Amino acid sequence: MTNSAKPINLFEYQALAAGQLSQMALDYYASGAGDEITLQDNRAAFAGYKLRPRMLVDVSHRDLSTTILGQAWQMPIAIAPMAFQCLAAKEGEMATASAAAKLGSMMILSTMATKSLEEVASVRQQTPQWFQLYVHRDRGLTKALVERAHAAGYQALCLTVDAPMLGRREKDMRNQFALPTGMELANLTTLKDLKITQRAGESGLFAYLLEQFNAALTWSDLEWLQSLSPLPLVVKGILRGDDALRAVEHGAQGIIVSNHGGRQLDGAIASIDALSEVVAAVGDRVEVLVDGGIRRGTDVLKALALGAKAVLLGRPILWGLAVAGEAGVQHVLELLRDELDLAMALSGCAKLADIDSSLVVR
Amino acid sequence: MTNSAKPINLFEYQALAAGQLSQMALDYYASGAGDEITLQDNRAAFAGYKLRPRMLVDVSHRDLSTTILGQAWQMPIAIAPMAFQCLAAKEGEMATASAAAKLGSMMILSTMATKSLEEVASVRQQTPQWFQLYVHRDRGLTKALVERAHAAGYQALCLTVDAPMLGRREKDMRNQFALPTGMELANLTTLKDLKITQRAGESGLFAYLLEQFNAALTWSDLEWLQSLSPLPLVVKGILRGDDALRAVEHGAQGIIVSNHGGRQLDGAIASIDALSEVVAAVGDRVEVLVDGGIRRGTDVLKALALGAKAVLLGRPILWGLAVAGEAGVQHVLELLRDELDLAMALSGCAKLADIDSSLVVR
Amino acid sequence: MTNSAKPINLFEYQALAAGQLSQMALDYYASGAGDEITLQDNRAAFAGYKLRPRMLVDVSHRDLSTTILGQAWQMPIAIAPMAFQCLAAKEGEMATASAAAKLGSMMILSTMATKSLEEVASVRQQTPQWFQLYVHRDRGLTKALVERAHAAGYQALCLTVDAPMLGRREKDMRNQFALPTGMELANLTTLKDLKITQRAGESGLFAYLLEQFNAALTWSDLEWLQSLSPLPLVVKGILRGDDALRAVEHGAQGIIVSNHGGRQLDGAIASIDALSEVVAAVGDRVEVLVDGGIRRGTDVLKALALGAKAVLLGRPILWGLAVAGEAGVQHVLELLRDELDLAMALSGCAKLADIDSSLVVR
Amino acid sequence: MTNSAKPINLFEYQALAAGQLSQMALDYYASGAGDEITLQDNRAAFAGYKLRPRMLVDVSHRDLSTTILGQAWQMPIAIAPMAFQCLAAKEGEMATASAAAKLGSMMILSTMATKSLEEVASVRQQTPQWFQLYVHRDRGLTKALVERAHAAGYQALCLTVDAPMLGRREKDMRNQFALPTGMELANLTTLKDLKITQRAGESGLFAYLLEQFNAALTWSDLEWLQSLSPLPLVVKGILRGDDALRAVEHGAQGIIVSNHGGRQLDGAIASIDALSEVVAAVGDRVEVLVDGGIRRGTDVLKALALGAKAVLLGRPILWGLAVAGEAGVQHVLELLRDELDLAMALSGCAKLADIDSSLVVR
Repeated sequence: MTNSAKPINLFEYQALAAGQLSQMALDYYASGAGDEITLQDNRAAFAGYKLRPRMLVDVSHRDLSTTILGQAWQMPIAIAPMAFQCLAAKEGEMATASAAAKLGSMMILSTMATKSLEEVASVRQQTPQWFQLYVHRDRGLTKALVERAHAAGYQALCLTVDAPMLGRREKDMRNQFALPTGMELANLTTLKDLKITQRAGESGLFAYLLEQFNAALTWSDLEWLQSLSPLPLVVKGILRGDDALRAVEHGAQGIIVSNHGGRQLDGAIASIDALSEVVAAVGDRVEVLVDGGIRRGTDVLKALALGAKAVLLGRPILWGLAVAGEAGVQHVLELLRDELDLAMALSGCAKLADIDSSLVVR
Repeated sequence: MTNSAKPINLFEYQALAAGQLSQMALDYYASGAGDEITLQDNRAAFAGYKLRPRMLVDVSHRDLSTTILGQAWQMPIAIAPMAFQCLAAKEGEMATASAAAKLGSMMILSTMATKSLEEVASVRQQTPQWFQLYVHRDRGLTKALVERAHAAGYQALCLTVDAPMLGRREKDMRNQFALPTGMELANLTTLKDLKITQRAGESGLFAYLLEQFNAALTWSDLEWLQSLSPLPLVVKGILRGDDALRAVEHGAQGIIVSNHGGRQLDGAIASIDALSEVVAAVGDRVEVLVDGGIRRGTDVLKALALGAKAVLLGRPILWGLAVAGEAGVQHVLELLRDELDLAMALSGCAKLADIDSSLVVR
Repeated sequence: MTNSAKPINLFEYQALAAGQLSQMALDYYASGAGDEITLQDNRAAFAGYKLRPRMLVDVSHRDLSTTILGQAWQMPIAIAPMAFQCLAAKEGEMATASAAAKLGSMMILSTMATKSLEEVASVRQQTPQWFQLYVHRDRGLTKALVERAHAAGYQALCLTVDAPMLGRREKDMRNQFALPTGMELANLTTLKDLKITQRAGESGLFAYLLEQFNAALTWSDLEWLQSLSPLPLVVKGILRGDDALRAVEHGAQGIIVSNHGGRQLDGAIASIDALSEVVAAVGDRVEVLVDGGIRRGTDVLKALALGAKAVLLGRPILWGLAVAGEAGVQHVLELLRDELDLAMALSGCAKLADIDSSLVVR
Repeated sequence: MTNSAKPINLFEYQALAAGQLSQMALDYYASGAGDEITLQDNRAAFAGYKLRPRMLVDVSHRDLSTTILGQAWQMPIAIAPMAFQCLAAKEGEMATASAAAKLGSMMILSTMATKSLEEVASVRQQTPQWFQLYVHRDRGLTKALVERAHAAGYQALCLTVDAPMLGRREKDMRNQFALPTGMELANLTTLKDLKITQRAGESGLFAYLLEQFNAALTWSDLEWLQSLSPLPLVVKGILRGDDALRAVEHGAQGIIVSNHGGRQLDGAIASIDALSEVVAAVGDRVEVLVDGGIRRGTDVLKALALGAKAVLLGRPILWGLAVAGEAGVQHVLELLRDELDLAMALSGCAKLADIDSSLVVR
């Protein structure tokens, strides 16, 4: 890639990635549930918030670092958990983790990774990593994953709660989405008690996992989950203030406001629109993060102004990965970080604590 | 139809049906009055309601059954009364009724059916059926219909009140819509006292019926109608709280919030937007249903959250009928039911009673 | 025109008329000032009002007649004053007046007519006519027009107040709009004291008239105007409640809420959006009419529900005139009247007095 | 340019200019930061304000003159500071200044002009000029500029405060924007202490200037700036009421509500939407101007109704300059002035003081 063709924003990465991926993989990554209304709302909702920048503040030096769960982060931009990253590039989650580590961007590794959590942990360096999981019907599976994550040095568990069943993603249905031969769910294949009825290719494994979603899970199960390790628990997939409070009452130390990138319940409120209610409900008791539709530094600024401590970046990471592997992920993160840095400077914010709710108006 | 081409949502049924129907029939089914503003609003208005799902509720088993007018329904999705179903498939209303019966979906048979109410009753099985009627100028005709419906085991009368005159559907005007030769209004042709001036083809019969619309009907006529049989009365076509109250005061046991699928008064409020006012007005005194623009399980969820006890599905039933007869109707119902089932699971609702108004925000 | 090609709504008349008129005439009629924002808003604003129809009212007989300024009108739809109607059809204002007379639709004749007010009066029959005028710089001209209008039996004066200067209609500027040779301002050419510097063709006459606009006119001049004849005065072009009150205080007996069809101040509020404020300001002291963007019977219904006693129809009259002369105007009026009649029936209104503000919601 | 092809509004100038400019220059002038959301909002926001014109006011003579900072202006339309005007026409800022002087339109000369402030001052005549500047890191540079501006007779300093860093204009990044060989920053090249590392072409000079932006500047630095000359200080780039108050407290005598034409912080509130808050905050203590998106006389009218004393015109000046040099600038100003004049007449405003907040409704 010559310099003049190098993407200068995240949208250009998306356009380039579309030419690098199989249709099945592109659809799997890009699409949302149902009519993709929430997918579109996630992005469109940001335009409803206008910035009210302050002038003549000394912004000659900006500091984007923050502390989340007591962990030092170099920027308030982390990487959302995303499955099957080897579909985007051969190195998959290893490349993503390595890029994140270099830039000090926390990464959440998905249970459904195509590289094992131990491998990914090996490139961590000083940057924290979290491990995402579902509570599976097979509790032994869940327990084993938690213990491995703890052993491998992950610093928090991120429990996805918005998937008691899999959302209806019609493009995947049409494509009869399955993992290519040779690609595996690396965190699961090594587990002794994994009983998978093999079907054509690896899709049996995928189907197995979907069946493992536990629709019976309730708030009281969080206690059990927390008993498995000393890791702090972050609950991902909250869209209501009352649910956020319940999470806090059951021991969660962090909340991620999310609608799963529009991939679960189509018609759900845009995550940025749900953020204020959650922040108001939990106050300072836990830290609130948000994902969904973030593509610009000004989006991050808006999310922080609305009360998020940090944001998660999802699909653009995959576009970077598809376009240029680790270097692509790194550049995507750099672009967004630099855009945030500039947006802060132009808004009169030298550090994250300077970002307050008066910066946005709806 | 191969499996891979099988529609996976109701929109795909509509697209396929367009290729199966004559232009005249398609226009008759699909079009609305005037500029079709209400037709479009009915659909578009759903997007104005965003879902606020609850997490970590045990939704491992969902129950979609409900009780309406004391009748057991397997799902809160019934079939709206629609005329001339033989235009869509040879078996017409018989196919629709049979599919409904198999899935436990209540069907409302139109007076203007192309199969007689007695024939349709014969495939009912355990699923209730209602009979839709107008109060005709010829009161003997109305009386005869009510008595036959009662005798045939229909469990409620659904009185359409939004058609004192026929709405101005310009496509039908352009097409000079008429029933094809050989198709008849099966509920009316056998009535001894039916005096129809025959015109070209069956359109004379159609014209006759339109002339029979009784623009002089008032609320006090409901008492007369109820005196004709012990059947409960449901009033269809209400868009205001005060009208809903009047219906209750005159003995109605159910209200269907409806603008006749945008086929009567163009510019009328979208039915989903009128629902809350009606629900607030009648409280628990009668059961409120709604139709208009429902195409997704999340639409049903929104309607229930806004206070409807059930919804009616209209045009998509005809698309299923046109594409694959009874099997098509059955699949359309299954798709919508399954989408509702999933939407409930993803919203933290195991049963219909769990759906409350906090699930939606405008 | 065969029956099957006969327009079935006013939009179809517009489409047909476009093929009948010179580009210059079409642009003159159809265009608005500036960016045509108000022109578009006038139409679009109607969609912002939704109808809340009442059911089960006896609407077997509808009565559309009304009384305005003590005059009996057969329908609450009158014809707005429009210049240069001979551009649309040879018979010009004579055809319009004749059609209006046949249907009992009051017509307002423009000072800038291409047929004289005496000629137009000759086809009046029982239907009232009003005469539109400006107060010209040449007061003798104004006085002469008023006296002639009174003598010819016009029943009201309609003073246009929104044109102290001519709006900037860019299409006319580009076209260098002028009246064709042989077409004349018939109300003015016979006046002895008319001093026109002849320029190329008749455009000198047109330019003269524009120069005659009196930008110095104020409310106190209304007294002088009313002293010229016993005719009641209706003020056209009001968009604010305070201005409406001023008109009443200076003797106006009617108000026409109008932005001149979007031809004067681009960016002005849509007339239907200004109506409520004017109605609230004047109460029952004078009668309020409205024009701008009315194309459907439901638009008339909305205007009446918002407090107008009647509406004026503008451009569609010209489209009818261009397509089929007097018969076209008559059909346009019939279409709109019949649409209103149906809209009333479907809304539970048997007479105009039944139309109340609860019929619309914004 | 023949008369019939002469532009009749500012949009036509933009279209013509696009054919006169290099792509690099066009992009530099026309584009905004990021996704150009603010650029579009600036224009679109005007449509959200509707005009409520008054009728029957004597508007036979209009007076557009005003007094700003005690200076007599012939119209409330001034020229915004814009860099590099020689990119549009060889005479650059000289042509602009000359046109402004002829029409009595105040011009703000940019520090980054391609003609020196002394040259531009030489064509001033009776019309005031202001000088725009940044506070550069090199304070000697700032001081020298202020002293020269004062010596040359500029009547105010306009401090741009919304550019602690340069906004991210992606078209310029793609184009690797640089000044053509031979074009220079005429206000800076003559300064003895200017130390520029020469790079390819003149772009080194441009890069130097960008580096000179002082991100450490704070409100207290305004005192220093004011100590350099007796010139009144106007602060440009304010979007919040609290910032406007701070400016007043630190001695500013004027506020320009601006988001830099959408070229700095994308997502910032449209300037016309920020105006009311600023006006409400400062009351009568200082004069408030606004720029951003003004293309029509009605836009100026809306801005004045919302409390601005005058507006600045930006890009359209460049389009006029590109199309026809000084004559083009003059015509652009004449068009906008004449549109304002007409808009005032049609709104019942004979002088600027007649324009009040009741003229607009959102």
